[in-house]
Amino acid sequence: MRITKDQLASFSPNNFHFRSLELLRERFSNQHIDFEKVIRKIQEFQIAIPSAALGNGRASKKKSRTGGEPRDLSEKLEDIGLLQQLTCKTNSVSIYIPYDIPEDFGQVKDLANELNLEFDTMNSTSSQDQNQKEYAKLGSLGNPKKAIRDEAIAHNEEVINIGKKLGSKGLTVWMADGSNYPGQSKFRSTLGWTEESLREIYEYMPSDWDLMLEYKPYEPNCYHTVVPDWGTSSMLAKRLGERAKVLVDLGHHLPKTNIEQIVATLMYQNLLAGFHFNDSKYGDDELNAGSIKPYQLFLIFCELISGDEDGAQTWDSISWMIDASYNTQDPLVDLIQALESISIAYTKALLVDRKKLQEFQQNGEGSQAQEILQMAYLTDVRPLVCEARVRAGGAAEPLEAYRILMIRNKLVHERGRKSHNSIF
Amino acid sequence: MRITKDQLASFSPNNFHFRSLELLRERFSNQHIDFEKVIRKIQEFQIAIPSAALGNGRASKKKSRTGGEPRDLSEKLEDIGLLQQLTCKTNSVSIYIPYDIPEDFGQVKDLANELNLEFDTMNSTSSQDQNQKEYAKLGSLGNPKKAIRDEAIAHNEEVINIGKKLGSKGLTVWMADGSNYPGQSKFRSTLGWTEESLREIYEYMPSDWDLMLEYKPYEPNCYHTVVPDWGTSSMLAKRLGERAKVLVDLGHHLPKTNIEQIVATLMYQNLLAGFHFNDSKYGDDELNAGSIKPYQLFLIFCELISGDEDGAQTWDSISWMIDASYNTQDPLVDLIQALESISIAYTKALLVDRKKLQEFQQNGEGSQAQEILQMAYLTDVRPLVCEARVRAGGAAEPLEAYRILMIRNKLVHERGRKSHNSIF
Amino acid sequence: MRITKDQLASFSPNNFHFRSLELLRERFSNQHIDFEKVIRKIQEFQIAIPSAALGNGRASKKKSRTGGEPRDLSEKLEDIGLLQQLTCKTNSVSIYIPYDIPEDFGQVKDLANELNLEFDTMNSTSSQDQNQKEYAKLGSLGNPKKAIRDEAIAHNEEVINIGKKLGSKGLTVWMADGSNYPGQSKFRSTLGWTEESLREIYEYMPSDWDLMLEYKPYEPNCYHTVVPDWGTSSMLAKRLGERAKVLVDLGHHLPKTNIEQIVATLMYQNLLAGFHFNDSKYGDDELNAGSIKPYQLFLIFCELISGDEDGAQTWDSISWMIDASYNTQDPLVDLIQALESISIAYTKALLVDRKKLQEFQQNGEGSQAQEILQMAYLTDVRPLVCEARVRAGGAAEPLEAYRILMIRNKLVHERGRKSHNSIF
Amino acid sequence: MRITKDQLASFSPNNFHFRSLELLRERFSNQHIDFEKVIRKIQEFQIAIPSAALGNGRASKKKSRTGGEPRDLSEKLEDIGLLQQLTCKTNSVSIYIPYDIPEDFGQVKDLANELNLEFDTMNSTSSQDQNQKEYAKLGSLGNPKKAIRDEAIAHNEEVINIGKKLGSKGLTVWMADGSNYPGQSKFRSTLGWTEESLREIYEYMPSDWDLMLEYKPYEPNCYHTVVPDWGTSSMLAKRLGERAKVLVDLGHHLPKTNIEQIVATLMYQNLLAGFHFNDSKYGDDELNAGSIKPYQLFLIFCELISGDEDGAQTWDSISWMIDASYNTQDPLVDLIQALESISIAYTKALLVDRKKLQEFQQNGEGSQAQEILQMAYLTDVRPLVCEARVRAGGAAEPLEAYRILMIRNKLVHERGRKSHNSIF
Repeated sequence: MRITKDQLASFSPNNFHFRSLELLRERFSNQHIDFEKVIRKIQEFQIAIPSAALGNGRASKKKSRTGGEPRDLSEKLEDIGLLQQLTCKTNSVSIYIPYDIPEDFGQVKDLANELNLEFDTMNSTSSQDQNQKEYAKLGSLGNPKKAIRDEAIAHNEEVINIGKKLGSKGLTVWMADGSNYPGQSKFRSTLGWTEESLREIYEYMPSDWDLMLEYKPYEPNCYHTVVPDWGTSSMLAKRLGERAKVLVDLGHHLPKTNIEQIVATLMYQNLLAGFHFNDSKYGDDELNAGSIKPYQLFLIFCELISGDEDGAQTWDSISWMIDASYNTQDPLVDLIQALESISIAYTKALLVDRKKLQEFQQNGEGSQAQEILQMAYLTDVRPLVCEARVRAGGAAEPLEAYRILMIRNKLVHERGRKSHNSIF
Repeated sequence: MRITKDQLASFSPNNFHFRSLELLRERFSNQHIDFEKVIRKIQEFQIAIPSAALGNGRASKKKSRTGGEPRDLSEKLEDIGLLQQLTCKTNSVSIYIPYDIPEDFGQVKDLANELNLEFDTMNSTSSQDQNQKEYAKLGSLGNPKKAIRDEAIAHNEEVINIGKKLGSKGLTVWMADGSNYPGQSKFRSTLGWTEESLREIYEYMPSDWDLMLEYKPYEPNCYHTVVPDWGTSSMLAKRLGERAKVLVDLGHHLPKTNIEQIVATLMYQNLLAGFHFNDSKYGDDELNAGSIKPYQLFLIFCELISGDEDGAQTWDSISWMIDASYNTQDPLVDLIQALESISIAYTKALLVDRKKLQEFQQNGEGSQAQEILQMAYLTDVRPLVCEARVRAGGAAEPLEAYRILMIRNKLVHERGRKSHNSIF
Repeated sequence: MRITKDQLASFSPNNFHFRSLELLRERFSNQHIDFEKVIRKIQEFQIAIPSAALGNGRASKKKSRTGGEPRDLSEKLEDIGLLQQLTCKTNSVSIYIPYDIPEDFGQVKDLANELNLEFDTMNSTSSQDQNQKEYAKLGSLGNPKKAIRDEAIAHNEEVINIGKKLGSKGLTVWMADGSNYPGQSKFRSTLGWTEESLREIYEYMPSDWDLMLEYKPYEPNCYHTVVPDWGTSSMLAKRLGERAKVLVDLGHHLPKTNIEQIVATLMYQNLLAGFHFNDSKYGDDELNAGSIKPYQLFLIFCELISGDEDGAQTWDSISWMIDASYNTQDPLVDLIQALESISIAYTKALLVDRKKLQEFQQNGEGSQAQEILQMAYLTDVRPLVCEARVRAGGAAEPLEAYRILMIRNKLVHERGRKSHNSIF
Repeated sequence: MRITKDQLASFSPNNFHFRSLELLRERFSNQHIDFEKVIRKIQEFQIAIPSAALGNGRASKKKSRTGGEPRDLSEKLEDIGLLQQLTCKTNSVSIYIPYDIPEDFGQVKDLANELNLEFDTMNSTSSQDQNQKEYAKLGSLGNPKKAIRDEAIAHNEEVINIGKKLGSKGLTVWMADGSNYPGQSKFRSTLGWTEESLREIYEYMPSDWDLMLEYKPYEPNCYHTVVPDWGTSSMLAKRLGERAKVLVDLGHHLPKTNIEQIVATLMYQNLLAGFHFNDSKYGDDELNAGSIKPYQLFLIFCELISGDEDGAQTWDSISWMIDASYNTQDPLVDLIQALESISIAYTKALLVDRKKLQEFQQNGEGSQAQEILQMAYLTDVRPLVCEARVRAGGAAEPLEAYRILMIRNKLVHERGRKSHNSIF
């Protein structure tokens, strides 16, 4: 289904919105902030949706089907198209292979074109080999057996081939590789094999592609993961070459990690590939971005903007994607909430009085530096985010529109209650 | 399959074993330890095997089938019978319902009798309701909807009924209940409904049964779990009555928790129901007991023995079960290793010079208290554990026997390569 | 020094404030929220300042003196008086003994009266005995040696005596007791002695006093702490009697603990004594409340308001205190920021649409429940907090007033640059 | 004081020791282990003692003086001399500046010579500047103010100058630098200044010196530390040059970190500088090495031996030091225990059947790999460690000898009960 322009137009902001926006503008007038520029930045900030996110949950978690889930890649694109119409925050899809191999490339590309969607970085899958037994024991790209490694390399090359046809410009590699028993894996050998395999993949990539290397401390393995932290990820990336960088998934950190500092440290080296947005309280919970630690998300955007402004690493060189599991609720609702939360955090960070902040930082004035951050964080920026969305053609209140338009009902009607793509 | 007495007899200890044992006896002679009593205690310490542990892995984790897994409850009992023949450390099975509902109670009880196995505490299942949708949203025994709670209560009552027929004397309740979004669950109401439901179950139990209440901080829920810690579990247990106690699963704790202290605090109140043995590095990893933190396991047994000796809570009032997931290797091998690790930790704790320790404790002599513990912990007690097993009729080296007898091969031959009970 | 009424009056809100407030009122009009009642609640919510918080840092951390710190209890009261004039959020002081034993009770009480300050709960100190050696080894109230325990009990009784003279109505007990080596302390015995000692103190307390029992998982001890968690604290409180309850210090939890749930669980049992407000990223960091995890602080207030509204435990029965270390910056600035952060979290929680929330909770509608919370949390409530403060006679912007009035400079001038109370 | 050769000779092993050793040799005969070589390796493995470790505790923790603490550097050397006589495990001292600046270099070097002690790596101090105020705010080598950075660089250069006179060959840099408030420090700038300062120090170092860069996630700062993890430390080390490497302090990791993997990853890059040995349950507890997680210590040595054998990084290129706080007990007793624990972990790792292990690793046989490790770990290697010590001229049982010789009493008699070097 599609939403018509008329339908969208009916969800325009009311007078209250404009008065709120004016008050906001007035509040920041002494900070000499160009509101039009802020609105433009909010509009330009687009976040990819993974093709795996449109269905309900993962097999590993208890799930309750919402119904109306997309049954194939085309329907997934349509869902993202709906999100884009409502929110104007997502103009691309990130494909997981082998789950979403297009049957007809032409048709898929035409549909994407029609929906104004691009193909973001491709994702390979290292957690499932054909006979399942080998990967589970000692991994894919770092498996001690060359034949298994070659199989895993070939899989990544296939993903690149598919991505080339779709117009993607990057490959995200996340390896589930690791071990469960002390002694099971020889750490240095595994690392060496992984480096070799990654090099083959890196060299196979077209010269205008980037390799984004993800890290994760644990899960699915319980004792050791081959690429557990940003240090390992960046060591490998540097050994591969300039087009290899480090991808930060917010949920993939040990307890208490200062993630905003990692972001700054990667930008210091021009080594930040991009983000997988989600949130977590305990582990890799894959909860909605901003639903548990919204202040941390704000602090991360403060580092991103600061790094961009200082020329450490350009904003455009960074890739953005949502990666959360949505296991018991309507995935489209969760995605709308996530896009909104991320936009809010970004907007607040744009409002930080960076000039004053730097003065306080120069003198170590902690209380005052904190006050500057709080000034921005405590501000209700929803009018700004709304204004950016409405001007771009979206709905004033996307969740309200989603409900009033009864989109889920229509999708269930169209696709059936038990429909789903059963892969994840 | 069964192992014959002759086969077992062929795995008797060699001369080296007896010399090692003598040296051990000599080393502890000045501590006035009665070695015969120690050997008897090791023999008497029996650990239940859950009916869910004999197959490979859980659906939630990547798995590789070993082959030859038991296809029904009878074959599970047979597997435990094999473990018991080899190790003499496990004389009972703990049944999970609805996964292992006996079709023919008489036949199952006869088989158990024949294998000298008893039926330990029963386990109900709160993570899967019939239509899957309701439990996933807001839980089972604490669900806001009375009809769902009643369904969950009825399930537990059915488990009790089955357990009565089998001769079990206890029910372990673990609730997956919880929530994923802040605000989703009303904490106090959920706790109240849970208490009410548990009371119904408690009152339904025969008067010679115990209720063992498990706790877990997170997973499968990512924001809140209804019974997350021993404090909540003990509050509920005390409100139910004397026959309700707290079950400690070693993997169910927040990072850095001092578990041995929790054990002592529960014994202080005569409130320790029993254990689920496993080990973990990151979360509820369900790795083999003693495979990551063997010293912690030793310290736990030190508390258990101390509590028993002081009369805080009797050894016999405590229930013991293995609970680990065994996801990529032969489950029988892992179980033999776990039984051995637990026995070793227990035996070392039996050798602690408790008299001297108390003197040092009285004066806060930390270095010296630690030295006393290290004296016992650093001792190689395998000869003692082996002696206890051999005298009881087991194999000197169970893993060696398991491999030489090619038990897995025979099970695969008997049951097939792809056999498995697909429930978990 | 004191601030004059005229001075305060010069820091009144501008026209922008009133327009912001009106817009806020309009926004919440459909929620039928009585703004006057909200403002009254904000005004009534008063937070005690510990007498130990007015100087710089603790000896244990690197520190840099701000200068002008209070040199005795009277000057501490004066500092709190200044805070109260500026913020109208703190009407009481919580005294630490032996650090702030009044020399002249009459004079101190007169001064407090004059400043409209009351004496909140008293704090004893368990971390330092007279010869320092014994407490460090095996603790105070739980020390194996009766003479040491008696000394510690006597100290607490002295604190009660002092508190009686000051008009305090409660005693907070936090024990640094614990051990550093496995084996050093006999857990159950230590717990038993601690219970006995607490009983003596409990019985010594006047019948209108409350005992608030704090818990902390680690530090200063590195292996075991006698009262490490709310479970132990509540077990002891229940054994003592109705007037013993559990105090929650936000920094005293293991990583990942769901503190808002603990608050709810304590209110479920009418067992919540009160709070020590602070924030932390790593351990017991004693950072400013709301400076790291402001959303958690909001969720805690949501539970508090819900528990009060449902009649689980009355708001008035709960005690509130700031407890943070302020180690490198001006302590008065940090305290003003903390009072503001706490007020903001509380005000946001007051704006939650509790009626709708309960409907969604009843159906487990996680996304929608979350949306309800976000609606309130994202609101900029500073106009409300400001309005409440101004109406009560405080400054519109306390930090701005503090700086314009050059209060620190004046304190340095009055008391000297190197002045400080050297105890902490 | 010194121990005479006769005194030491009186603590020779008894007949039981030799029988135990023989049984051990027999047990490992089929593994073709050269016991003489193992004993030689144990003897060659020497661990430095920090000059700061001989007194009691740190000011930051509650302390109880043991008495007889060394009053100056000479007496510290004498204490280490005693340790070396008893244990034969420590042939060097690691000096902290400014705490232990020699007054008379010739005398100190003569004394060290006489005691057969060398001067291991030097330690600078970044946590205390002259006026205390600046470092506390925004650090030393990464301070925003050039004058402060220059002061800190000059301090390190002074340490190098002192070290040159003493014959040291390395400098360990640990920076307490960081911040307590979000926003207080500009991460990338601070990192840049730190890199610049380190480069100056690196270039000042003699060409045969190494720079060892320590990392620590938190403490004394509570929000951000400039060099928080091995990734940052190795990035800086690589930018400095070949003689800069990463120092691993076992206590300086976030919860759940797989430290043995970090060791392997550093060796993979020939980037491991050395170790600070200690143990911890909660944070940087500075407990005795092996007192909490002895199995982890064993796994670390397994990686070290494996890396050395494979030629990844030579054993000799790695530096070893104890770094623990010893806050309530006799520091010499704690040091003897630590040296023993480390030796035991190393010896067990030497006994691992590495050939079989590699076979199992090649096939991902987790259970069997674990069994190989357990075979070595469960072995009581104390006879081997004792034999190595006795042959080198040490006491069979150092702690027993220490007590029988009443060394502490004699030190108290010699130096006084209240003696101590009050710096730490």
